[in-house]
Amino acid sequence: MIIKKENKVFIATSIDGYIADINGGIDWLHSIPNPENTDMGYNAFIENLDALVMGRTTFETVCGFDMEWPYLKPVFVLSNTLEQIPEEYLGKAFLMNGPLNKILDQIHQRGYFKLYIDGGTTIQHFLSEDLIDEMIITIIPILLGSGTSLFGELPNRLEYKCVSSKIFLGSVVQNHFVRSKIKGQ
Amino acid sequence: MIIKKENKVFIATSIDGYIADINGGIDWLHSIPNPENTDMGYNAFIENLDALVMGRTTFETVCGFDMEWPYLKPVFVLSNTLEQIPEEYLGKAFLMNGPLNKILDQIHQRGYFKLYIDGGTTIQHFLSEDLIDEMIITIIPILLGSGTSLFGELPNRLEYKCVSSKIFLGSVVQNHFVRSKIKGQ
Repeated sequence: MIIKKENKVFIATSIDGYIADINGGIDWLHSIPNPENTDMGYNAFIENLDALVMGRTTFETVCGFDMEWPYLKPVFVLSNTLEQIPEEYLGKAFLMNGPLNKILDQIHQRGYFKLYIDGGTTIQHFLSEDLIDEMIITIIPILLGSGTSLFGELPNRLEYKCVSSKIFLGSVVQNHFVRSKIKGQ
Repeated sequence: MIIKKENKVFIATSIDGYIADINGGIDWLHSIPNPENTDMGYNAFIENLDALVMGRTTFETVCGFDMEWPYLKPVFVLSNTLEQIPEEYLGKAFLMNGPLNKILDQIHQRGYFKLYIDGGTTIQHFLSEDLIDEMIITIIPILLGSGTSLFGELPNRLEYKCVSSKIFLGSVVQNHFVRSKIKGQ
């Protein structure tokens, strides 16, 4: 049996492609009134995945939120500087480092194949090796004018298809891109 | 009677927000097979407008195309360096310079109120003065990794709403953003 390995992104940006403002702030993500608290497909997305992969910055941001650990699935934290996962997250988060293909091999060997790739640096790292199969990008309709860009430089152009698009709250648009190359894996 | 003044953008970008690649190339704009030659709403958009406003770079690019002058409406070319409009475009293109509000006043005085604002630098200039009412942005689903960005720095955040979204050719997505502030004009 061939097990399908998939790396997917689910992230919000400003119209001008930023994931955080110039001060690292993300208050603007919640600038659209959301009275019925729609999740814009997030829970359905994450339910269909096996595990998360994120960088240290995203991990530490989530750890800093004033709430319980939000993930029911294993979180693999990519870092070359973090020495260990803080004790309260043991069994939930797992530290990984080394080349990306080796890290992915280890995650696959543990039985996790459908992965949610999160965090700007990690997504850029995966894209630079053409390892992102799908991107669901929710555009918060604001121009920030500066900040941290979702996308960075790439060694090669990558072609996708936008297979669907949805409007939420009469204001926010979510575009679903799927890599259009025929992959050998 | 209050005449509604509108400045609108209709432009294509890559997923990563570029309007030209690192060499100024735009071949990737036509990378999606388009057998029935859909215009993705371009003609309907331009029919509803009174005139175009573009920068020197866009003007010279259009002049360099191996085809007849494509515009049936007046084209106002913003430039501080161009000395005159080449003779073959006299009566079609009109050179303008000075502060943007003065230029707009002059265009409005000539009876043109619904304007198509085109070209990266000109769009950025208009956005920096919060003068863009609508943006129809067609995303060609490719990551270029580098190039000329549509958006630049802004003195202030600008809020829009995405009022509609369409998929063309099973691949390209077009998002229509409208400025959400209540304008005094």
